[in-house]
Amino acid sequence: MKLPVLPSILLVISTAHAFQYSELVQYVDSHQEEYVEALREWVAIESDSSNVLKRPDLHRMMETTAQKLRQMGGTVELVDIGEQELPGGIMLTLPKVVTARFGNDPSKHTVCVYGHVDIQPAKLEDGWATDPYNLTDINGNLYGRGASDNKAPVLAWIHAVEAYQALNMELPVNVKFVIEGMEETGSNGLDTMIMTQKDTFFSDVDYIIISDCGWLSRQPALTYGTRGNCYFLAEVEGPKQDLHSGAYGGTVIEPMTDLIGILDTLISPNGKILIPGIREAVAPLSDEEWKMYQDIQFDIDNYKKKIGVSQLMYSNKVDLLAHMWRYPTVSIHGIEGAFSDPGTKTVIPSKVTAKFSIRQVPNMDPAMVKRQVSDYLHSVFAKRKSPNKLKVTMVIGAKPWLADPQHPLYEAGKTAVKRVFGMDPDLIREGATIPIARMFQDVTGKGIIMLPIGAFDDGPHSQNEKMSQFVSTTHLSLFHKDFQIKPYKLMNVPIY
Amino acid sequence: MKLPVLPSILLVISTAHAFQYSELVQYVDSHQEEYVEALREWVAIESDSSNVLKRPDLHRMMETTAQKLRQMGGTVELVDIGEQELPGGIMLTLPKVVTARFGNDPSKHTVCVYGHVDIQPAKLEDGWATDPYNLTDINGNLYGRGASDNKAPVLAWIHAVEAYQALNMELPVNVKFVIEGMEETGSNGLDTMIMTQKDTFFSDVDYIIISDCGWLSRQPALTYGTRGNCYFLAEVEGPKQDLHSGAYGGTVIEPMTDLIGILDTLISPNGKILIPGIREAVAPLSDEEWKMYQDIQFDIDNYKKKIGVSQLMYSNKVDLLAHMWRYPTVSIHGIEGAFSDPGTKTVIPSKVTAKFSIRQVPNMDPAMVKRQVSDYLHSVFAKRKSPNKLKVTMVIGAKPWLADPQHPLYEAGKTAVKRVFGMDPDLIREGATIPIARMFQDVTGKGIIMLPIGAFDDGPHSQNEKMSQFVSTTHLSLFHKDFQIKPYKLMNVPIY
Repeated sequence: MKLPVLPSILLVISTAHAFQYSELVQYVDSHQEEYVEALREWVAIESDSSNVLKRPDLHRMMETTAQKLRQMGGTVELVDIGEQELPGGIMLTLPKVVTARFGNDPSKHTVCVYGHVDIQPAKLEDGWATDPYNLTDINGNLYGRGASDNKAPVLAWIHAVEAYQALNMELPVNVKFVIEGMEETGSNGLDTMIMTQKDTFFSDVDYIIISDCGWLSRQPALTYGTRGNCYFLAEVEGPKQDLHSGAYGGTVIEPMTDLIGILDTLISPNGKILIPGIREAVAPLSDEEWKMYQDIQFDIDNYKKKIGVSQLMYSNKVDLLAHMWRYPTVSIHGIEGAFSDPGTKTVIPSKVTAKFSIRQVPNMDPAMVKRQVSDYLHSVFAKRKSPNKLKVTMVIGAKPWLADPQHPLYEAGKTAVKRVFGMDPDLIREGATIPIARMFQDVTGKGIIMLPIGAFDDGPHSQNEKMSQFVSTTHLSLFHKDFQIKPYKLMNVPIY
Repeated sequence: MKLPVLPSILLVISTAHAFQYSELVQYVDSHQEEYVEALREWVAIESDSSNVLKRPDLHRMMETTAQKLRQMGGTVELVDIGEQELPGGIMLTLPKVVTARFGNDPSKHTVCVYGHVDIQPAKLEDGWATDPYNLTDINGNLYGRGASDNKAPVLAWIHAVEAYQALNMELPVNVKFVIEGMEETGSNGLDTMIMTQKDTFFSDVDYIIISDCGWLSRQPALTYGTRGNCYFLAEVEGPKQDLHSGAYGGTVIEPMTDLIGILDTLISPNGKILIPGIREAVAPLSDEEWKMYQDIQFDIDNYKKKIGVSQLMYSNKVDLLAHMWRYPTVSIHGIEGAFSDPGTKTVIPSKVTAKFSIRQVPNMDPAMVKRQVSDYLHSVFAKRKSPNKLKVTMVIGAKPWLADPQHPLYEAGKTAVKRVFGMDPDLIREGATIPIARMFQDVTGKGIIMLPIGAFDDGPHSQNEKMSQFVSTTHLSLFHKDFQIKPYKLMNVPIY
């Protein structure tokens, strides 16, 4: 059982001396069971930031994280970031942000590791093969909600520091942590916290590392961009309570029919977004990008097989990568308030709320998208002449992030990956949203690198999410038990 | 606290002598608390026939019903009606049907009371003001799932027989009961049972009484028709598991978008069913019906106020009544498999199943409707050129029922109602489905009358369903505590 504690070490001990390596290897090897146990404890906490009913678990998760860092002797703070306002004006306390510091030597670089310990919702009955909150080892894969996104990567970084401490080795860099609990719902409150601590906690930070992402294929990768996300609620409210569809069907103008009608105007069957203004804002694909995408390893058949579909929205690599990374899309996630249980309830739901989101790319602006979506849906709804009430709200408005893949930080990363894997990393983007990258960029101006720890088939946000021991079965991997020694070669390569 | 035990007595003791009435009145009055307690026990059993996970409760409900009838000395049977097949081929035992007999005198008429003790789903978080399984008295209304539909009416009939027994009075008629547990999902298995027992249990039945319905207004009513219902599942299946909308949005052809697309083709914003062939099958509205509807008491403003809407699908009484009772309609109840919880999950659901139903009226044929819906949805879906898979299944196919309101049984009913309320009953139909009426008509050929016990505002299938003490506040009522004596005048009027 090998947890991905290794890549953390790669970076942290990048300036360490050769004789230290074997000691670290030995320590890490002999403590794998503890690492798995730590992950098991974290996965058992249902720290779902999107469900207000789970907020006590989320608070507990932050406290557990802080406690672990405190026990290691870090300078730890639980930073109060205030409250969030729920629909109806109810105020709910946000999970505190954990900050920690190990080392304070002005002659060293300071690395700040960002991670999050909140998770997406998961229920066994969604189709999980195992209890999502009971970490389960099947063939070297550790299944559990949050295992890959982002609890194991966070633990990997923490355990790297711990290994140094246990061996009484001096950390070659100062290490800081910023660990939040609202990432899955848009990092609510974190921007203010970063701005407030810009000239204190963040003042001596040289580089920010984010491992909240995954490889694209079996080819190693560095990530230089992420899409943003605007998440919308479209609520249609009609009768004052649910009605019997036998008694009232035919006389009542049903909110569900109205909602289906407006949802159907968001996107065409072939993926064209129908909301005026959205597509026009997107930066055009440059020749250089086109060329870059052409060279990226991406096996379409394998991708189709992995997700189990016979056909994708596009049939060629460049179109697929472009629509994965640098074009917006609309996904309809579900409807709250309608009948969603097993069975055959004959109900006219009185209030139904659709949830959909639009991924953001340069040069879209969430504030503008909010207005475009709201105006469009209201105009489409008005044509129905329904007496029901439509309310459109944007509850997440996260901007996209884009780094320069020629920046020295990325050049160092490329060199390091080449040493370990014997090949250049693919420079990839992430279709998903990691708002922190954009936030750090805007507020601190620090260099940021995204170093994926997750495998391409980890399935974050899906049923049966897992953290894998194997990023690759065909290449040497950081996590493959047969190649434990190999990754340590990277330690000779300072990547900062 | 007055439970509607009275109307049962009205019918059962219709040939009783005058001196018996006051004794019965006294007995019923002094046992109201027991009647409420009995209803409380029944409501506490979550006998939801649509949720397979509640099947043990449903079995318990049938056993409880049988036990109550056994304790009264009835000849009781729990009739095995076999199993139902669930999707995936799993077989589930159907709740047994309770039959009971009190009296076997060939010189008397035999009345068979039909009722059901299964319920619609209900959860506190759906918007109930009180726990739906804890009967709660608020201002003389007894709130609880199944209170009006159909547990209290069933208990009313049972308590009527019990009153006779307690007073050692001879029942003026033989009374039989048929009480089932699958009504809310289409009375699965009951048709076979009725057919099997046609020449045994049902051979001496003269009349069948159903009290599984409600008044239309504050005007007393008799019901002579019900709509049927065809309940459909439309399942769209795509990727083999749920996907992260950030990672996969843009490349995957999303099942939810496909499903929304085809659902939007079922019915127009102004209520026109778009499935070819459906409207053509409907019997045209006759001049006689039009005239009848014109004369029915129906306060549109009150109806709008009751359900809390500013506008209905039609603005005049005849159109509204016609679309409530004798035209089909499509209601979309919800989607299983999509994200329906609170929060903001960013998921691409892999398999989504819409649930919708089409109310049936003469001369529609469920078998034909099944084909029309399936063919239409598949043709609409094909135009999308989606690689996802569509499966359309009809899980309930209940026919409409229509009686002749000039039949002697209804004439007797009219006379009886006039005696009690001092006015003619409205002859109404029911938009909802009571498959048993049609089933009895087809199989036994016996006379059937529907005598509503529920009030017009009981809210069956809704949040805050209740059984009311007051059917009317403006007219004398069977249930109003100030007019306990008046209804007994009806006892002089033999209605059979």
